[in-house]
Formats: sequence, C-alpha cells, structure tokens
Amino acid sequence: MYIPEQFNINNAQSIHQFIRSNPFATVVSNIDGKIVATHMPIDRFQDGHYYGHFALNNPQSRIQENEETLVIFTGPHAYISPSMYASDFNVPTWNYSAVHCYGNIRFIDNETKIWNLFHELVYRYEGEAGWQLPNEEKFKDLTGFIRFFAFEIKRIEAKFKFNQNKPDEDIESVIEGLRGIGNHEAADFMERITTHRGPIKKPLEDF
Amino acid sequence: MYIPEQFNINNAQSIHQFIRSNPFATVVSNIDGKIVATHMPIDRFQDGHYYGHFALNNPQSRIQENEETLVIFTGPHAYISPSMYASDFNVPTWNYSAVHCYGNIRFIDNETKIWNLFHELVYRYEGEAGWQLPNEEKFKDLTGFIRFFAFEIKRIEAKFKFNQNKPDEDIESVIEGLRGIGNHEAADFMERITTHRGPIKKPLEDF
Repeated sequence: MYIPEQFNINNAQSIHQFIRSNPFATVVSNIDGKIVATHMPIDRFQDGHYYGHFALNNPQSRIQENEETLVIFTGPHAYISPSMYASDFNVPTWNYSAVHCYGNIRFIDNETKIWNLFHELVYRYEGEAGWQLPNEEKFKDLTGFIRFFAFEIKRIEAKFKFNQNKPDEDIESVIEGLRGIGNHEAADFMERITTHRGPIKKPLEDF
Repeated sequence: MYIPEQFNINNAQSIHQFIRSNPFATVVSNIDGKIVATHMPIDRFQDGHYYGHFALNNPQSRIQENEETLVIFTGPHAYISPSMYASDFNVPTWNYSAVHCYGNIRFIDNETKIWNLFHELVYRYEGEAGWQLPNEEKFKDLTGFIRFFAFEIKRIEAKFKFNQNKPDEDIESVIEGLRGIGNHEAADFMERITTHRGPIKKPLEDF
C-alpha cells in the first residue's frame, strides 16, 4: 500500500486496537496466479495469534500454506469535500484507514484446538451474558463444515489518512464537517489520531 | 468468492446500485507475483464505464494493463448472534454484502478526457449546490499527481449474505435484532433484499 510518511502508523498498540475494532477482514490469496478474496472476521486471540476460518466448500480453504496471503482490515472513511476545510485551495479527497497484513495461513486440524478456538471466538463476540456455545455433538459436528487457520503475520502496512498533512484549523473544520454529515465514526477516529497535533484530548493509547 | 446459490446476486441493476451506494473500493493487483491493494472510490460514470485514479507515486499506478485486477466493493455487514434468531439451533455468523469485479485497468493519458472525468467526479460527490472545480491552471496541474484509469470489467461475483437460507420468522427476528443493536444500515439492507421472500414492502429495483 502506498503510504506517505504522515499517514504511516507503526505503533503496534494502535494497530491491534484497530483490528480489534474492525475485525471483519478481506482475506486475499493467489490461487494458480488468480486473485481470490473472502470476507470473514480475523481476530487476535488471547495467545497473541490471529485466527480465522473458511467455509470448507470455499476453494480458498485449500490454498497452499506457502502462498503469501494478504489480510485487509478497513475502518472509518469518508469523502472529504473541499468545502469542509477552513483554508482555501483544497481538492476533494477520501479520508480512510486500512491495515494490510501480509503473511501465511496455517490450517489447524486438531479437533480440541478447533473447539477451543470456537469457544473463545463465541465468548469474544457474545461476552459473559450472551449466547453460549453448547457442549453438544451437533455443535461439534459444525466444525466439520469450516476450516480454522492461524494467520502468521510477516509484515504490516498501516495507513490512517485523515488530513494529518493539513494545518490544525483544517483538521478541526474537517472533524466538524464530518459531524455535520453525521459520520461520527470517522469524526471520532480523526479526532483521536490527530490529538498529538494539538492539546491532548484523549491519549493515543485510548484509541 | 465462494457464493452459495441463495446468496448469489446476478441482477445488473442491483449490482450497479450497490456500487453506487458503496463506491469506496479496494483495488487489488499482482505486481511481480505479489498482491498489492489500494483503497479508492471507483465510480460508474455517465458513459456507463467505471473509472478510478491512483496517486502517481503509488507503484500500483504503473501496473501492467494486461494483469487482471480485482476491485472489491463492500457494503453493510454485521455479526449475527444465535440469540437474534426466532428458531432454535443456530450458530454465530456474519452477514455481509460484497461485489467482486475482475477486469483490467486502462490508463488514460488524454488531458481533456482526464479533466472531463475530474469534473464529472466532483459533480457526482458535490452535486449542484456543492463545491465546484475551478477552471484554473493550479487545479489542472493537480491532475499531474494522479493517474486516471478506466476499469474494464470482465466478470462480476456478487454476494449478499443475509440469512436468505433461513425461515421468514428468523429473517424478521434478525432484522429486529440488528435494529436493536443500532445497525440500521444492515437492517435496512437485509429488509430490502429479503422482501421477495414475503409480501413486497419495497420493490427490489428501489434498492
């Protein structure tokens, strides 16, 4: 991904938090030289590793483990009108956030491991009070229709492009503009990642 | 993309409308066998063709035109808890919508054509009352920093996966569940694409 220096993110904590907030990823591989992609949640588990799962009927569930795979996470984004800036002479742009993780898929065939991953995944999305995975055969059978894998990340490219190359007055007016069009997700995100530019409102670690 | 029959969309009008509503795409290419991706709006212009533009400094702006490129559009999505279903015995899933367009990039070098595309793009996002692109040299110079291209689509895979394989009572309870967690975007989308299952509330063409 092309990342001008001012939009480059290399803080591991920020990247982990971003993925945690935006786990629904696009998993891109080459099969016989052709690009294929599947959409699925990829989560960082308690052991610090990333895991996902394919439907077993998905041909991408049979890719070669030595083929490099790209997992793309995307977050808040918005069209930015030149009218949102305080200063003159601006052109339309798109503000966005994306993390590209390059690495390899390692399929998991151990049934106990799969069942444990399934449990942790359910707990992550359901929490203490939510739906619980019953310890029944019919649920265990379901794991036969999916193929879990660990995603071994080799390289990360992270880009948060939210006008960090603009003066403070523009940053503030764009945040206000985003609130004006009701895109609070992008406004909140932009506010957090640009706080280092001015008085600290929220620490970066909070993001 | 792996698409079970019940989630497959092959209605051109639905696909065009989906892209119009979700133009911020991921453009994926191979460069020397390595997968690269850039995020940008890709729009269908009045002439019926799709256009986008790279930053000229982006290495992907120099890809081979004969290399197949995948343009991914994504739309509403949501984690679906088993507790959202009316019926028993359901497992967690993710509902989502994605359109994958395979084709080739054709770079555009004609300055008049680029200027016209730039104008139409601005008008599309700004409308009649919004910011207007001044007919000034300093704005024309900006086109030197980007590289416009037409995207010639050869093949489309479209998947709207929103529980169409479930009984009506589940469809209704999931829509209600999505509203309950405040994801009205996914609820509205699901309501529209599943109307053919029951009494027509909104025609599909409206989507």
